[in-house]
Amino acid sequence: MIEHDEIFRLRTTRTPGTLARVLAAIGSHGAHIGEIETIVMAREFNVRDVTVISPDSETVALIRRSLEQLEDVEIVEQSVDKVFSLHEGGKIEVRPTVEVRNLQDIREVYTPGVARVSNAIAADPSLAGRYTWKGNTVAIVSDGSRVLGLGDVGPEAALPVIEGKALFYSKLVGINGVPVVLDTNDPDEIIATVTNIAPGFGGIHLEDIATPGVYSIEDELIERLDIPVMHDDQHGTAVVVLAAVLSAARLLDRPIESLTFGQVGLGAAGSAIARLALSFPFQRVLAFDPGVEAVRRLGRLGAGSATPLEAVSDGFERVVRESHVLIMGTGRPGLLSRDQVTQGQVIMAISNPVPEISMEEAKAGGASLAADGSIVNNVLAYPGLFRGALDAGADSISMNMKRAAAEALSSLAPDDLLLPDALDLEVHRTVTRRVREAAE
Amino acid sequence: MIEHDEIFRLRTTRTPGTLARVLAAIGSHGAHIGEIETIVMAREFNVRDVTVISPDSETVALIRRSLEQLEDVEIVEQSVDKVFSLHEGGKIEVRPTVEVRNLQDIREVYTPGVARVSNAIAADPSLAGRYTWKGNTVAIVSDGSRVLGLGDVGPEAALPVIEGKALFYSKLVGINGVPVVLDTNDPDEIIATVTNIAPGFGGIHLEDIATPGVYSIEDELIERLDIPVMHDDQHGTAVVVLAAVLSAARLLDRPIESLTFGQVGLGAAGSAIARLALSFPFQRVLAFDPGVEAVRRLGRLGAGSATPLEAVSDGFERVVRESHVLIMGTGRPGLLSRDQVTQGQVIMAISNPVPEISMEEAKAGGASLAADGSIVNNVLAYPGLFRGALDAGADSISMNMKRAAAEALSSLAPDDLLLPDALDLEVHRTVTRRVREAAE
Repeated sequence: MIEHDEIFRLRTTRTPGTLARVLAAIGSHGAHIGEIETIVMAREFNVRDVTVISPDSETVALIRRSLEQLEDVEIVEQSVDKVFSLHEGGKIEVRPTVEVRNLQDIREVYTPGVARVSNAIAADPSLAGRYTWKGNTVAIVSDGSRVLGLGDVGPEAALPVIEGKALFYSKLVGINGVPVVLDTNDPDEIIATVTNIAPGFGGIHLEDIATPGVYSIEDELIERLDIPVMHDDQHGTAVVVLAAVLSAARLLDRPIESLTFGQVGLGAAGSAIARLALSFPFQRVLAFDPGVEAVRRLGRLGAGSATPLEAVSDGFERVVRESHVLIMGTGRPGLLSRDQVTQGQVIMAISNPVPEISMEEAKAGGASLAADGSIVNNVLAYPGLFRGALDAGADSISMNMKRAAAEALSSLAPDDLLLPDALDLEVHRTVTRRVREAAE
Repeated sequence: MIEHDEIFRLRTTRTPGTLARVLAAIGSHGAHIGEIETIVMAREFNVRDVTVISPDSETVALIRRSLEQLEDVEIVEQSVDKVFSLHEGGKIEVRPTVEVRNLQDIREVYTPGVARVSNAIAADPSLAGRYTWKGNTVAIVSDGSRVLGLGDVGPEAALPVIEGKALFYSKLVGINGVPVVLDTNDPDEIIATVTNIAPGFGGIHLEDIATPGVYSIEDELIERLDIPVMHDDQHGTAVVVLAAVLSAARLLDRPIESLTFGQVGLGAAGSAIARLALSFPFQRVLAFDPGVEAVRRLGRLGAGSATPLEAVSDGFERVVRESHVLIMGTGRPGLLSRDQVTQGQVIMAISNPVPEISMEEAKAGGASLAADGSIVNNVLAYPGLFRGALDAGADSISMNMKRAAAEALSSLAPDDLLLPDALDLEVHRTVTRRVREAAE
């Protein structure tokens, strides 16, 4: 592995155009600029870490020489960017699970032996779940239209994130996660493409696809396919947030039957959170979004739940005031001010990277418990959800299964925390078992 | 791993209806019948191995009891079917290539660190080849319409074969082969689907797709995509056959410039063999197929080659007579009789499972060298072809690269054999190097 992603820590005098000359010098060698992080901004000079992505180490050397020749620029330090070198070549691989040492092995594993396995599956396609990797394999599908906080970066740029999801699938629950990134944003084309490739997979994990398209994509694929389909940004997030809320209620010793669950912001995650909340016996669920369509959609999806639902597109202040537990997922930094917080309220402001209200502000305003988006690690939920669904042979991931996952996660949280450790294999085994039981 | 694919060796009296009663008894327990192999057919009794595919071991026990109660049936032996148990759970898996032990690792491998990698790729999508698994990953795509000798068995039944291909990719050249089996046989839909998923792959390996659809699928994908696309049944086969022919000429000490290369049968493999033969300095290439369209197509594709081409849809006997090297890929067992063979001819009758003429018959008719389909192991060719193309950053697999692979394979064959050992890693390293050099 060649490590030629370099961070140059540069001290530049504060004269106009210096940084531009630095970047031009780097670009002149055909290298790309990665992150630029300002370390010190003093009156006379700045210190910045400039990440340089170069085709090879010779280019790095040439860049260094060019930078040395620039006036007003001093190289304080040059170091390898560990993040880039870690991702070099990707984070997952396909490996054989059977030995092939000689012709006899080939005859059994490949032709002619494999023909008998193919014939058996041709007679009964459900046997593919047993005699291929299908029963243990989930396609992680993204069009790259809504990646992390980055937005529509395209399919190739989604790949490192999707590979990360696959890595955790393998490491935590032994599922083969196969990244499938799509060169189309059209919902109908996405549906057709996923339907066409579905026979090789035991489940479809949708990831980082923008709303509102992803709603119809998920609905239609659930309808068409006889394998579990789940949009993680919605339901994985909802499971983790509900787990945290259950833990908060336990920590504060307040039965959820006495609590009004407030959800502000009904985007992908917000609407799924509100829906999952409706499957718990909260006193009621109060939901707010300025968008009339999002409010209508939740009203439709939440109709008939035992827990009362009130979804509104105005009266933000009232929703905030009347919610004992207030979840905010609006993407609007600083939306809530300290003086809007009610005494004793539980506040989770989960928008990334900047929350609607900081944990400090919420506490200062009287919140008994406050959290931000850093608690919401979907790695807690999706592996066990799919592992449990595959083990149960479930053809979908039901509300019951999601509720079981949230309850399991909350029950596994250490006494003083809202959620357990995402790398604890025992956590994933327990979530898997509870999801599987809920599926049966 | 539960092993409940069982082979029952049954001795049955030769009375009509006995085997039917055996199969009915097995079916009554919900089990499937696999292969039925006749071991002994005597005057009074038969002995057959009946493979039973059962949902669980309890069912196997119930079946045994039912068989024991049948008149005229005796269980000689009951054994586990090793082929089925070998394929249980599939033959490949996805594994992480980086360690994740703690929160700091998560931050580098996943969020927030991965966002920097995604941003860099968003700015320059070609960086995906370096910072994801894409540059080392090939989609193996099949619609299951022409699997081995089995025909149109559907996508699920293609999966065990495709997994076998993936297994060899990993084992022999370290490529991640990802099985993608398709729920459509429509060429336009296949083209659209593969185009849509292409951003996540460094190459597209088409496999076991029926003609004539696969021709337009391959042509169109080569046209649309900037990554190598190859239909292995055509070009992998052609490379291996040409390698064998080069070896045969060397063994017989006959320069290929003095040889007429005859190709009978212009299906997927046959037409690709004839095209690849045209890139070598044979005296001429003589091709025959009764189908006018196949002959026209080859005429079109072979136009302008330095080696003379004569493609005809009649005059089979003449083609056979005038060919010094005769390749037959017609799917018609026993097409060629011993007395049609010319003295000293090289005959490769590669139709599976039964050749156009057996090696013994061909030799008896005067052939100096004869081979059948058992020599054509595509595992010799496709791993090095794609590894070489990926290493070179090639956007296609050119005729030059295929020719280089054939020459490399022939040069690596032991003195007295036509082809080298498919499991010899050194063979694949050499093919890779020669293909990479031919790409540059």
